Amino acid sequence: MFEPVEIGSKVSKDEFEAAVDPLRLDLINAQYELHERPFSVIVLVAGDDRLGVEEAVDVLHEWMDARYLDTHVFRQGVEDRIERPWFWQHWQGLPRHGQIGVHMGGWIYHAIARRLRGVIDDDELDRRLAHIRRFEELLAADGTLILKFWMHLSRKDHRKRLEEAEEDPDKGWRMEDRDWKLVEHYREILPIAERTVRETDTPAARWHLIESADRRHRHLTFGRTILEALTARLEAPEPTPELAAAPASPAEQTDVLASVDLTAELPYEEYRKRRNKRQVQLSKATRAARDEGLSTVLVFEGWDAAGKGGVIRRLTHAMSAADYRVVPIAAPTEEELAHHYLWRFWRHLPRLGRMVIFDRSWYGRVLVERVEEYAHPSQWQRGYTEINDFEQQIVEHGTVLLKFWLHIDPDEQERRFKQREVTPYKKYKITDDDYRNRSRWAEYTAAVDEMVRRTGSTQAPWKIIAANDKRWARVEVLKTVCKALEKRL
Amino acid sequence: MFEPVEIGSKVSKDEFEAAVDPLRLDLINAQYELHERPFSVIVLVAGDDRLGVEEAVDVLHEWMDARYLDTHVFRQGVEDRIERPWFWQHWQGLPRHGQIGVHMGGWIYHAIARRLRGVIDDDELDRRLAHIRRFEELLAADGTLILKFWMHLSRKDHRKRLEEAEEDPDKGWRMEDRDWKLVEHYREILPIAERTVRETDTPAARWHLIESADRRHRHLTFGRTILEALTARLEAPEPTPELAAAPASPAEQTDVLASVDLTAELPYEEYRKRRNKRQVQLSKATRAARDEGLSTVLVFEGWDAAGKGGVIRRLTHAMSAADYRVVPIAAPTEEELAHHYLWRFWRHLPRLGRMVIFDRSWYGRVLVERVEEYAHPSQWQRGYTEINDFEQQIVEHGTVLLKFWLHIDPDEQERRFKQREVTPYKKYKITDDDYRNRSRWAEYTAAVDEMVRRTGSTQAPWKIIAANDKRWARVEVLKTVCKALEKRL
Repeated sequence: MFEPVEIGSKVSKDEFEAAVDPLRLDLINAQYELHERPFSVIVLVAGDDRLGVEEAVDVLHEWMDARYLDTHVFRQGVEDRIERPWFWQHWQGLPRHGQIGVHMGGWIYHAIARRLRGVIDDDELDRRLAHIRRFEELLAADGTLILKFWMHLSRKDHRKRLEEAEEDPDKGWRMEDRDWKLVEHYREILPIAERTVRETDTPAARWHLIESADRRHRHLTFGRTILEALTARLEAPEPTPELAAAPASPAEQTDVLASVDLTAELPYEEYRKRRNKRQVQLSKATRAARDEGLSTVLVFEGWDAAGKGGVIRRLTHAMSAADYRVVPIAAPTEEELAHHYLWRFWRHLPRLGRMVIFDRSWYGRVLVERVEEYAHPSQWQRGYTEINDFEQQIVEHGTVLLKFWLHIDPDEQERRFKQREVTPYKKYKITDDDYRNRSRWAEYTAAVDEMVRRTGSTQAPWKIIAANDKRWARVEVLKTVCKALEKRL
Repeated sequence: MFEPVEIGSKVSKDEFEAAVDPLRLDLINAQYELHERPFSVIVLVAGDDRLGVEEAVDVLHEWMDARYLDTHVFRQGVEDRIERPWFWQHWQGLPRHGQIGVHMGGWIYHAIARRLRGVIDDDELDRRLAHIRRFEELLAADGTLILKFWMHLSRKDHRKRLEEAEEDPDKGWRMEDRDWKLVEHYREILPIAERTVRETDTPAARWHLIESADRRHRHLTFGRTILEALTARLEAPEPTPELAAAPASPAEQTDVLASVDLTAELPYEEYRKRRNKRQVQLSKATRAARDEGLSTVLVFEGWDAAGKGGVIRRLTHAMSAADYRVVPIAAPTEEELAHHYLWRFWRHLPRLGRMVIFDRSWYGRVLVERVEEYAHPSQWQRGYTEINDFEQQIVEHGTVLLKFWLHIDPDEQERRFKQREVTPYKKYKITDDDYRNRSRWAEYTAAVDEMVRRTGSTQAPWKIIAANDKRWARVEVLKTVCKALEKRL
């Protein structure tokens, strides 16, 4: 698929000079208009022409206002990428709304390089390309404009450039050993590069192939393509949320919560004994996990007043403070609102050997945001897919992932609310919202049901915990975490 | 200094239970009031009682709203701490305004542990304690309330607790090998801990020593001290900026800019030759720096239209994109405004072997913020000290630090402004502000002069570059960077 752009395109000096000034002006203007808009732009620059890629990024900095370009170069082997799932670094590098992120290599090189070195096979490559597609689709669905450029230089032109560089020291110093290597291995690289480009060329994120041999042609095409796409997007009406997909068929409903036995309980002495035993067990397991580099993510969801905080404290009590981090999910900050809603969860993923406990989580999207209509149906409906992909990446990285729903019935909740109202230091926990939410018990039940059905799996299971009795719930959670860790140690 | 708290303080169960509920209520209320206020709180919990420290942090999470506690545990040996100056991690962990940061160990353990292991000597310990003092003073001057707690357990009580734990498995599992080690080395540890506590007990950040043996006493004292300090701070009038220090004596003025020879220039052919030579040199030097792990920070300041962008592009043109990052300083985000003004610069410091180029920098504080009166005199005046301490830490970490002021005269600036106005794609670079700023040329000159005098040093030198001729300026900067790198390789 690269051959069609090996046609020797050239731009004369005069044509270039006449074109550049108005182009720069338009680019700057578009950039300033973007600044006020609630979406972001990603310009991903990759290619078999290393120098061409670098020069293209340079020229963008010259032509646009560099203060609002957020440029990232992704190198391999930096610790964080091993410590956390593959895409973690790319999530960290996403531009905020109104900004242009310039990603050199981006998420493309990683897959190509590993296939080339034989670290992964074709199947694994395909699986990674599928992740890339889903990542790009997720960003596009969130309004991000993704522009991908591949700078292509034929083997002949590569060789010619290197030979010229050998003779001319003014050019030669910009060449690196790896440029020679690329020419040597060109015939192995190209098919993998082509496969990667082909498999990630989707309506959400099209590739633009640019013939890279002539610098003026390359830069002009690059700049014009960005301008055209950006202008079109700025002039388009604000995207109305897509038509909602048909709601999940109610026939599918299994009502997972109805089947929970809420009478389960533990008398205090029995509780104390079991809790202590499990805490000792958990203490040993988390120390072993630290030593072996086994990471854990725990997610706690549940009805208001179901006792999440108490359960979490029984867990953390058994662990060394350096080994875990509790991430309570409160209202998002301005910074977080200016990114995809999963952004703030990605950033908290644990390093190797650590545990992160989410007190509420990304499931807000398909629970409270769905029921209270904070999210458009199309948003929470694609949420399931986005969440599944997110969790798949966590699991593939070797992390233990457990998700808990603490279940109580409406009567128990009301009892606890009333108790909170007469306990002064707990009053802050109760607001009018809580009572309002109660009136939507059935809708929440349906949302929980669909959530568990769509996002539960062997590798990322939902554990529904009977929590009418707090003691029972605490021991159940302790037990589940211990077993899951021990299974993996 | 720890002995006075070895008095066997105890709180009865009844007293504890009667006291806790109102305390929790008050803590929660104070926390909610803080939420709306423009300052942050740091609760640093350290001590010779490891378990006591962990339990204190736990109890705070139980008593307060954990969603607004920002808890950090600092472990040693994580890569980032070696990659960047010592305090980098602590800057990253600072809470935003309205929040309480809970720092377990914080910046205290690091110094103690290294002294104990003999990695550093007493002199180096003192130097680090001085850094700690300045860090805390800087935060306090910015309005941060810093509460430091040291949980102290006598050697006798340590031993008693460990012996009890050996007999009672219900207690034993919480003990770790290092608790035994601590008792063994107690007599070596204590003097170093005492020295550390003594030397970092300042009006900006007082230590609270708590006898840790009795858990109820420990928790009640801890909670009450926080409440008291937080309440006092919330009830105090919003701190008016301190009275400005006397302005720098004008007699000191040296007018460093007046001595710059602005007639320096390079004809094009000579420029091309020298530039190319220096770029080849820089290319080699930065590759060697990458291989050897030598980091570099470049700072560019200068008059508007002095040509910073052009100079920076001549530098980056000679480097591999993976090795450098340009950080253009634009208006701060909401997140950045909710922190100390140096926070956003700390986060961008380079990893080992990389270069970060700041296009404008922390010097805004003592330049534009001073002259345009965006900062109170007390703020920009203490800015010199804060900047010097920041840069000292960069330099001590082994990083090359160079600061450039690109100097032009008012006539040249006017010529360039006019040129920008007739160059459509450059018009965005010129605003009414720019012309206003011109009217304050003398004030800016005085500010530059004081800046260079107060913050220039052999290790973090200011280079004033004659930039009326752009070509001259570019080659001068290239030469300076090359020489500084080669000196260190």
